[in-house]
Amino acid sequence: MALVKLIEYAEAGPEVRAVYDDIMKTRNVDWINNFWKAIAHDPKTLKRTWESVKEVMAPGALDARTKELLYLAVSVTNNCEYCIVSHMAGARKAGANDAMLAELMAVVGMANETNRLVNGWRVEVDEKLQKAARGG
Amino acid sequence: MALVKLIEYAEAGPEVRAVYDDIMKTRNVDWINNFWKAIAHDPKTLKRTWESVKEVMAPGALDARTKELLYLAVSVTNNCEYCIVSHMAGARKAGANDAMLAELMAVVGMANETNRLVNGWRVEVDEKLQKAARGG
Amino acid sequence: MALVKLIEYAEAGPEVRAVYDDIMKTRNVDWINNFWKAIAHDPKTLKRTWESVKEVMAPGALDARTKELLYLAVSVTNNCEYCIVSHMAGARKAGANDAMLAELMAVVGMANETNRLVNGWRVEVDEKLQKAARGG
Amino acid sequence: MALVKLIEYAEAGPEVRAVYDDIMKTRNVDWINNFWKAIAHDPKTLKRTWESVKEVMAPGALDARTKELLYLAVSVTNNCEYCIVSHMAGARKAGANDAMLAELMAVVGMANETNRLVNGWRVEVDEKLQKAARGG
Amino acid sequence: MALVKLIEYAEAGPEVRAVYDDIMKTRNVDWINNFWKAIAHDPKTLKRTWESVKEVMAPGALDARTKELLYLAVSVTNNCEYCIVSHMAGARKAGANDAMLAELMAVVGMANETNRLVNGWRVEVDEKLQKAARGG
Amino acid sequence: MALVKLIEYAEAGPEVRAVYDDIMKTRNVDWINNFWKAIAHDPKTLKRTWESVKEVMAPGALDARTKELLYLAVSVTNNCEYCIVSHMAGARKAGANDAMLAELMAVVGMANETNRLVNGWRVEVDEKLQKAARGG
Repeated sequence: MALVKLIEYAEAGPEVRAVYDDIMKTRNVDWINNFWKAIAHDPKTLKRTWESVKEVMAPGALDARTKELLYLAVSVTNNCEYCIVSHMAGARKAGANDAMLAELMAVVGMANETNRLVNGWRVEVDEKLQKAARGG
Repeated sequence: MALVKLIEYAEAGPEVRAVYDDIMKTRNVDWINNFWKAIAHDPKTLKRTWESVKEVMAPGALDARTKELLYLAVSVTNNCEYCIVSHMAGARKAGANDAMLAELMAVVGMANETNRLVNGWRVEVDEKLQKAARGG
Repeated sequence: MALVKLIEYAEAGPEVRAVYDDIMKTRNVDWINNFWKAIAHDPKTLKRTWESVKEVMAPGALDARTKELLYLAVSVTNNCEYCIVSHMAGARKAGANDAMLAELMAVVGMANETNRLVNGWRVEVDEKLQKAARGG
Repeated sequence: MALVKLIEYAEAGPEVRAVYDDIMKTRNVDWINNFWKAIAHDPKTLKRTWESVKEVMAPGALDARTKELLYLAVSVTNNCEYCIVSHMAGARKAGANDAMLAELMAVVGMANETNRLVNGWRVEVDEKLQKAARGG
Repeated sequence: MALVKLIEYAEAGPEVRAVYDDIMKTRNVDWINNFWKAIAHDPKTLKRTWESVKEVMAPGALDARTKELLYLAVSVTNNCEYCIVSHMAGARKAGANDAMLAELMAVVGMANETNRLVNGWRVEVDEKLQKAARGG
Repeated sequence: MALVKLIEYAEAGPEVRAVYDDIMKTRNVDWINNFWKAIAHDPKTLKRTWESVKEVMAPGALDARTKELLYLAVSVTNNCEYCIVSHMAGARKAGANDAMLAELMAVVGMANETNRLVNGWRVEVDEKLQKAARGG
């Protein structure tokens, strides 16, 4: 059981309902998942977070599926169960299949491994890589 | 200065040279970056890590660019400077542009934020999301 | 079920009981929470940890409530469920209300987000900020 | 050197300048620190991040100093150098003194320690604490 | 319930069975734990991960028990429940007793604490320590 | 440059000097490393931290070298540069050689990788492992 009471649509005030309506419309779903109900106790955080997520996750230079995969990679690294489940669901909805998810896990695992090999030996950044990273 | 002496090609033994040769051939480059030179003191780890990275990062269900972006997202979350620089370079080489990298940073930031909102309130996973995550 | 048997007061030796007694007296409660019972298998760690927590959490330049909020912010960042629950309880006992906890979550989320934007772009510290941080 | 060119006021477009102006006005300063100049390459992220930070860090149920201290505690836990320096500067500007900062570090250290003792032994949450955390 | 169906021996293909057989033979056990069954959906990752773990965890300059303790220390720091439980079991199998595990937890806790005191104050590395770390 | 002025022996008060003296005597060295000088601004934290480190790192069920290796493994996982350097130095002083350190890095890398594979697929703990972890 969450540490705050979840705010259902029926009991929500107009400010919260407006956000819920926009979530359902934007995502083309007819229900609100627990994350939003949990932060709805703080309508400003609900509104700010939703508007930020909506802007950040909209297709742009990266498509929606890639964005969901990135979100999932971060959540796996941080071990956030809710976020893993919800963004794996989001990635599938955006077209990710079993093989893609398996490859994502392999990449995330490998990155977490080599991050520590680099950390441990305090490897200095190559100038060539630095320049290439800047697009120079 | 790294905590181990970097092993240059000229001074490397045959086992290490074989890995260096494969790295240069696979990536179509004519130099070895510091990460490999640092772990070359432990030839087994060099060989195992390279073979794993080669297998994991090869295009498959996900293309090479998406894999580099995922590697970068993890490295940003973990604040591994070397890995950020090298995989931002790798992402650019695989076709990522400024706009894509900027959107990646926005997604990574947002994911790290909402991961904590979920953690903090101990939000329970919705059954519908759990089912959708499994592809059911 | 925890990975160690919890040590109840009735079965505890005198060294452990002395710590339990001091916890109950200092906090003005009549029970011991599971954390202490779990580490009581190692009486030295129990004693050292309790004495450290007691010293660190005592009101000083910062009041008890601010300290509980800081503890909670760290625990949310690390996703430590037990610590989140116990220090949210501690914060409430020290006077934190719903609005304060909601603002804390918003700050913790935002800090985790901007930490990654800074990490990702490897932003260099401004000299003015460095001087100001030192109180110069 | 950061991985993106910093956008100075003189070369910024109107959208970026508007944010820079608001930052300087809101904080009553006459310069822009590197963080904002680094993300200004992505004006939408600049605007969204600034508006979010402005809203979240404004005094409310928690005062400005407490919010800066919480931001600092998260940044220390995550080892984000830029964020540590900038929010230690922010905390001092909002009235934090040496003694407060020293106590903050002690609390952050202790929380990171006990988080692991709890993690390691998989201590189960006490029902009483769960109820108290919810304010029940 | 895991996010992928666990692959039992009876339903596994020859590639997966070969890995399962090697795990059971190497560890001298007659069953496969859930971790391997979960990643068996991706036989390449199963094979690569098992061969890497087998190579890395084999006694060498460090004995098997020390390696299990190190694995456990990392898993406690990252709060990975499955890994904590499985490597605590592994450590016990390799001869670790209650007192050793309790001391491990104390060290892990302390390291996580002092890591933050160092982070927070941005302490510079002493040249003498740098030289000593390199074995100079 | 650290965010606090380092307290040298010559300028230290009697409380700080007593700790410095004990550090030098216990470790059989004739100098104080920067970590202690940085936290000496807060003599209570200096004293508490030193006494805790002294107690925790003393040989017991685990020998001094194993404890230094565990400290190093945590510091590599957290990417704390100062701690990595100082505890790699400490491990060498306690008898660790190049081969041991290389194996440690391999184990730490592998643990960080498999931690994420487990996180990502939400693998449930096997009852047999849970029992074995408890020593049952």
